[in-house]
Amino acid sequence: MKISADLANLLDRENGLVAVVVQEDESNEVLMLAWMNREALEKTLESHEATYWSRSRNELWVKGATSGNTQEVVSASVDCDGDAILLRVHQKGVACHTGAHSCFSNEIEISG
Amino acid sequence: MKISADLANLLDRENGLVAVVVQEDESNEVLMLAWMNREALEKTLESHEATYWSRSRNELWVKGATSGNTQEVVSASVDCDGDAILLRVHQKGVACHTGAHSCFSNEIEISG
Repeated sequence: MKISADLANLLDRENGLVAVVVQEDESNEVLMLAWMNREALEKTLESHEATYWSRSRNELWVKGATSGNTQEVVSASVDCDGDAILLRVHQKGVACHTGAHSCFSNEIEISG
Repeated sequence: MKISADLANLLDRENGLVAVVVQEDESNEVLMLAWMNREALEKTLESHEATYWSRSRNELWVKGATSGNTQEVVSASVDCDGDAILLRVHQKGVACHTGAHSCFSNEIEISG
């Protein structure tokens, strides 16, 4: 499939990577923050399976390819200034490699 | 206040900036993606008012300072690999400069 001109512009920024906020559709829980390049986004929109760009391994990464914890895409949107994506997903199993449901499981202490 | 060694490490990455997912506490709606440097994070945790680093203006940005649409911090957490923050907030008014409640208001068409 072809992505829109706006999305193409978006993916030309920031070394070709865009930040992706991943939210569970059923619970509204924020599961993780990941990154996509153009290929990852196209693959995600075509296959409906969340596919990211791994900045540590420098490779495409079909979420859950080894763990089975895949993410089926329900909807996707771009933010107002076109530099971030919100992906709503059905999460199979857990999102985090630690076994936690969400990657955001470490609370920061707030003063006062 | 002092931030923990883990958080300090986090803020030494990526040119000193960390991605911040902002979620409304009442509705669980994802409102925006923003960035913080160490000063912004310290100010946020001390004042309980979300303060970001504006990458376009290159300056600290107390959210709502001019619009009145401030974000009171309810809780904050760091993700498993320590390179993103989730901030849960009470949003006063709307989050987006377009007048939309959330910055993620532009749906991407998904094939099939």
